Amino acid sequence: MADLGERRLIEAIKGCYDYEWEDDDAASIPAGRAYTLITTDSISRSSHMPKGAGWDKVGYFFAALNLSDIAAMGGRPEYFMSALTLPAETKVSELRSLEKGIGRCLGKYGVKVIGGDLKQGAEMCMTGIAIGTVQKDRILRRRGAKEGDLVCLTGKLGRNGAAYRMWKETGNKKWGEMMLCIEPRVKEGIAISQCGASSAIDLSDGLFAALWQLGKSSGRGFEIEYSRIPIDSLALETRDRLGIGIEDMAFEFGGEYELLFTISPRRLPMLEKAAGRAGFGFSIIGEVKGSAVVLRRDGKAETVRSRGYEHFRK
Amino acid sequence: MADLGERRLIEAIKGCYDYEWEDDDAASIPAGRAYTLITTDSISRSSHMPKGAGWDKVGYFFAALNLSDIAAMGGRPEYFMSALTLPAETKVSELRSLEKGIGRCLGKYGVKVIGGDLKQGAEMCMTGIAIGTVQKDRILRRRGAKEGDLVCLTGKLGRNGAAYRMWKETGNKKWGEMMLCIEPRVKEGIAISQCGASSAIDLSDGLFAALWQLGKSSGRGFEIEYSRIPIDSLALETRDRLGIGIEDMAFEFGGEYELLFTISPRRLPMLEKAAGRAGFGFSIIGEVKGSAVVLRRDGKAETVRSRGYEHFRK
Repeated sequence: MADLGERRLIEAIKGCYDYEWEDDDAASIPAGRAYTLITTDSISRSSHMPKGAGWDKVGYFFAALNLSDIAAMGGRPEYFMSALTLPAETKVSELRSLEKGIGRCLGKYGVKVIGGDLKQGAEMCMTGIAIGTVQKDRILRRRGAKEGDLVCLTGKLGRNGAAYRMWKETGNKKWGEMMLCIEPRVKEGIAISQCGASSAIDLSDGLFAALWQLGKSSGRGFEIEYSRIPIDSLALETRDRLGIGIEDMAFEFGGEYELLFTISPRRLPMLEKAAGRAGFGFSIIGEVKGSAVVLRRDGKAETVRSRGYEHFRK
Repeated sequence: MADLGERRLIEAIKGCYDYEWEDDDAASIPAGRAYTLITTDSISRSSHMPKGAGWDKVGYFFAALNLSDIAAMGGRPEYFMSALTLPAETKVSELRSLEKGIGRCLGKYGVKVIGGDLKQGAEMCMTGIAIGTVQKDRILRRRGAKEGDLVCLTGKLGRNGAAYRMWKETGNKKWGEMMLCIEPRVKEGIAISQCGASSAIDLSDGLFAALWQLGKSSGRGFEIEYSRIPIDSLALETRDRLGIGIEDMAFEFGGEYELLFTISPRRLPMLEKAAGRAGFGFSIIGEVKGSAVVLRRDGKAETVRSRGYEHFRK
């Protein structure tokens, strides 16, 4: 499977069963005037856990990345379940530390644990399930971006990618743990959806992947202004120190959980007020335009062909 | 962790977060006059996949064991998601065969796939999530068994445990695949709940574990008549051929998915009619009585201390 890539693999297996599958961050099941949102995300030791990282940090990361998918749909996360497969030699203190990290994240967002599964296996592998709710007319999907909408982003990019590079360079677990430092953008997602954004996605596979996905689902293209993409200071330092391109850390690296969304310009004043009240910032990085993803940089326009990070790609 | 056992481990981690956790086969979230039921169950190569077993068979088993938890609550399964962590060397044909097996089971029970996750990892590890629904006043929980209720069982016991023993003995993959042959008792669960059963659980960890769990949740004991427990012919043959005790294969072996339930004797005629209409049989194996699990055999009564199969127990 190593040369097909995750997204083509998923297309290849859809024919195997009856499905009802909006290509969104979470599944949405009608429930009266709301949707119940359900999402699942897994991490395994070999793919996602930097060696030496504290179990508590891993737990927080694990819960946060699941809540992020609910946030990207404009939903309020309510419940959480986890299915843990752990080697027999795992220590009880490690398990408790992991669960405390999970609990720290869930507590922050008012989410309750309603069940789970605990099994023995050769490699540590943890699957989270987050359940949330959103009003039907406020749901944020990947489809919905309209010509002329603004393309916006919460937060800054490149911190996690830079931490990964620093960790690879130095082996210092401090950087490994920084890779795991993420926050689900829950209040941001709710405010954005209340203001009537037209589409949204989280950046779990990086900015380019998110743009490609939003564009594909909405049948639109984007014109992005390079100079408007906010870059984290650690990425700038790491570029200077290790000579690694900003693109690599900030645009193509999976493992960041900011929200990318589109919104009509006439809704901007409402969004600015809502963001002020909720206490978060966002950047306007471009516009919905045409059918390709175009990056404008130093007056030149280049078409982005990268689809960002994918599992099962060499 | 290897000496604590799964159930004590779960108790040990509950303090780590805010939880709302009925000790049932699936979590239940109020949704108007119904409950949305959600459950998760994982399998990994080292713990659950007999070497040489066809991927299609594994897929069917994987879906079935998740639907079983919905069935045990009296629910109708509606949706399914899977989070697959697979090694990079997995073949696309293997993945498709796995998904076809999943699809075969879901198709049989009218269940739709609404999303999932696909990741790369060192060991194959698959987590399923089944979502279903049940009327609020028809939900079957583990608590609810009342003194004097009948203890009943769908199907026969010991086939999967016997297949495991034969597989260990012969190495023939035919037996390995037979271990995976299970059916979620969906129509049975619905009929049982419509007839007003007082409690139910599936036999995923074996009969003794199920009795122990029902008893603990209901605060009751059981008197079980050994001669009334229906034993599969393969278990009888395997006892004669390999000299393995029936208890080992039929009472203590996890991996069977019949339903154990309790029901008031005055509801028995209704249940018999409903079972006839739905086309399934069940056995009355004992009575809710006292506070211990007692097995009556050849006129003698013995208290059962075994709690059946548990992960993380040597």
